[in-house]
Amino acid sequence: MRNCSSLKIDGPCKVYLEESELPKAWYNVRADMKKKPAPLLNPGTGKPMTAAELEGVFCSELVKQELDNDTAYIEIPEDIRTFYKMYRPSPLVRAYFLEQALGTPAHIYYKFEGNNTSGSHKLNSAIAQAYYAKQQGLKGVTTETGAGQWGTALSMASAFFGIDCQVYMVKCSYEQKPFRREVMRTYGASVTPSPSMNTNVGRKINEEFPGTTGSLGCAISEAVEAAVTQEGYRYVLGSVLNQVLLHQSVIGLEAQAAFKKIGVKPDMIIGCAGGGSNLGGLISPFMGEKLRGEADYDILAIEPASCPSLTRGKYAYDFCDTGKVCPLAKMYTLGSGFIPSANHAGGLRYHGMSSILSELYDQGLMRAASVEQTKVFEAARLFAQTEGILPAPESSHAIRATIDEALRCKETGEAKNILFGLTGTGYFDMVAYQKFNDGEMNDYIPTDEDLAKSLAQLPNVGC
Amino acid sequence: MRNCSSLKIDGPCKVYLEESELPKAWYNVRADMKKKPAPLLNPGTGKPMTAAELEGVFCSELVKQELDNDTAYIEIPEDIRTFYKMYRPSPLVRAYFLEQALGTPAHIYYKFEGNNTSGSHKLNSAIAQAYYAKQQGLKGVTTETGAGQWGTALSMASAFFGIDCQVYMVKCSYEQKPFRREVMRTYGASVTPSPSMNTNVGRKINEEFPGTTGSLGCAISEAVEAAVTQEGYRYVLGSVLNQVLLHQSVIGLEAQAAFKKIGVKPDMIIGCAGGGSNLGGLISPFMGEKLRGEADYDILAIEPASCPSLTRGKYAYDFCDTGKVCPLAKMYTLGSGFIPSANHAGGLRYHGMSSILSELYDQGLMRAASVEQTKVFEAARLFAQTEGILPAPESSHAIRATIDEALRCKETGEAKNILFGLTGTGYFDMVAYQKFNDGEMNDYIPTDEDLAKSLAQLPNVGC
Repeated sequence: MRNCSSLKIDGPCKVYLEESELPKAWYNVRADMKKKPAPLLNPGTGKPMTAAELEGVFCSELVKQELDNDTAYIEIPEDIRTFYKMYRPSPLVRAYFLEQALGTPAHIYYKFEGNNTSGSHKLNSAIAQAYYAKQQGLKGVTTETGAGQWGTALSMASAFFGIDCQVYMVKCSYEQKPFRREVMRTYGASVTPSPSMNTNVGRKINEEFPGTTGSLGCAISEAVEAAVTQEGYRYVLGSVLNQVLLHQSVIGLEAQAAFKKIGVKPDMIIGCAGGGSNLGGLISPFMGEKLRGEADYDILAIEPASCPSLTRGKYAYDFCDTGKVCPLAKMYTLGSGFIPSANHAGGLRYHGMSSILSELYDQGLMRAASVEQTKVFEAARLFAQTEGILPAPESSHAIRATIDEALRCKETGEAKNILFGLTGTGYFDMVAYQKFNDGEMNDYIPTDEDLAKSLAQLPNVGC
Repeated sequence: MRNCSSLKIDGPCKVYLEESELPKAWYNVRADMKKKPAPLLNPGTGKPMTAAELEGVFCSELVKQELDNDTAYIEIPEDIRTFYKMYRPSPLVRAYFLEQALGTPAHIYYKFEGNNTSGSHKLNSAIAQAYYAKQQGLKGVTTETGAGQWGTALSMASAFFGIDCQVYMVKCSYEQKPFRREVMRTYGASVTPSPSMNTNVGRKINEEFPGTTGSLGCAISEAVEAAVTQEGYRYVLGSVLNQVLLHQSVIGLEAQAAFKKIGVKPDMIIGCAGGGSNLGGLISPFMGEKLRGEADYDILAIEPASCPSLTRGKYAYDFCDTGKVCPLAKMYTLGSGFIPSANHAGGLRYHGMSSILSELYDQGLMRAASVEQTKVFEAARLFAQTEGILPAPESSHAIRATIDEALRCKETGEAKNILFGLTGTGYFDMVAYQKFNDGEMNDYIPTDEDLAKSLAQLPNVGC
């Protein structure tokens, strides 16, 4: 028997804040950054996008949030806080069982965002974006989804406020992940495989590449076209944007409050990083303390070795989408034409990184590292078996890094407090787990030549 | 917009007990029953099964619990309480959003058991059974699984204590639910499609019915054979048995404590009923109060119209399994040969009902009703859209009955407090949701002739 009876649990496994302790305002880390993140540029003019330009695509209030580099705290509307009470505050969990399995003196904590039907933290921003769309009197929203977590979250949020939700789902995911699709449909969303025949861009791609199974870039282009060509619709996005990191700060704010409650201070904070929504949300308030010189934290972004934007990309202006219809953002990027290997299972497949995180990383305020897929799933399995939660492949990148750090602590004897973000559950990722269980998973790391090729296509603006 | 801002939330949505408030003992409702449930009978002799006979199949400590009709409180071993802390106490949730959607004066509460990777309440008993197996020095356990919730729970529990777990999974589920299978494999369980070539009974069935996709009855028979023919193995079961209801009493005990905390008393308690594990666990301590004359509750068992053991079955001794290798139990039964329509999506497909619940029902201490599948999924969708949790089809039977009761309260103006058991999530049931979303779900109700046929085969013993 695992020696559970000797397991010293000297406090609660899970720290829950009261619902009355839910943050009343989101925290905008840009306000405390001396050097602000670079603005979005109009690809046509090379000049910063104005609010008026952005409002053709995004909701007005969200455009304000996108451009606001100065207001530190932005009030969370009461209706959104009411919705948050369905599934928040989310627990801060002490990973006693994992610590025991590793035999580490480190104290491992994770903020668990998977306890809602979308299965991830994405709901935190989806409900905010749906709220502002409704406030503006819109009929509905359009978006794209790859793995399906964001589409599910937006479907739930749209159902709550009674607005229409049109999801363009990458065709191969639509076919391979019918269950994700059905969750969205149960929430009343329409789910269209992309490329579709609904849009000009979709028809064009279908004509040029008959039988294509689509890509996220193409789905974005279709969703944007659908938003701007339908009366009363706007486009919404689940990551990368400043507004998304703002909404996701609720994760870090709750974590901070929970740590205060138990009188603990994390030494190190680890988060997986795709477009940056989870990592940015988790670290924001801690980074704020760091920027204001009130505390220091070792902050680590973990990305897949197959899609290493921070660790091997270039800090430059690039298109946010493969279709090149969106504005240019300054970010660590692998080039908007970069497509990670299809072998890669996780949702961390974005070619770039949030401008906020890119700037913080460039200023040396956080570190980054990459991990390989097989090692990630080994960590996921150990975590599942010890902590009882089957983690999402994305989150498991952070688990891998946490385990490695905890094992280092075992060598040094250091009782370091490590916090990582457990962004979601893996219930809809069992195809990847099956590959791993069958020993058929492999790793893929792009060569220098691969990266040079996609980086050569960066637009020549705004350096 | 749904009028969320006018939604009066006059208390917390979710009531969490502290981990230190986790029950220290399970409650055994049999102790307070004046007329005890009928004992298991040896099918060969027609006499009550002795401990010695049962110990060939079940763990010794569990046999003690199975036969103990007198001890009201049985201490929960510390290792099990430690494991419970991973995912318990589970929240008692006030369904403000559903209430608002219905416009009912009723106050609806649900005890949510789906916030763990097994996705259901089954883990509460799985961890107990795995613990006692390990305590006894066994190498492993065998079991069967249909929909897969019980198999998943037992895999998790076995991984925790480091014992082997062999799951016989009904072949059609094995093929149709590869994701469930992969969760079990990730936890280290071996999953064998049943009928297999591993056992005599499996080989025999494969020979007699080539190409058969199996049945739960057959999988039970294989799991029992595997347990008794391997050194150091025992068989475990996830429902029906007295011991399972004992372990599941943790649900009701927590609910009772949470209600005490907020100063509320439920008037009505509703639970879905298959073999009885959830309903029995939820109501046990409330039923205890009722049996001791301390309080009165209106208790309602909800079963599918397609498998109506309480509402249309007979109270008699019957085999617990289709293969007729298990002892006889006195219960409300449709006959061990009864097979509900394959159309039916939920996991409430068992032909009989826990002896404890059968006896309580027979004494008029609880009511029962049945609901049809399409109506169940309509309720499931409304619940998902309002409360943000995609419910399991099983749980949704209770949701249907709760909604109907809340709508009755709307007519009468009664502010009744209704508690129902939300046993789990529906993430692995999306095939059923898809059928519903596509309008292809249909209802099936067995005819009186169907039931007469299977009831005609009841064994002629122990009346």
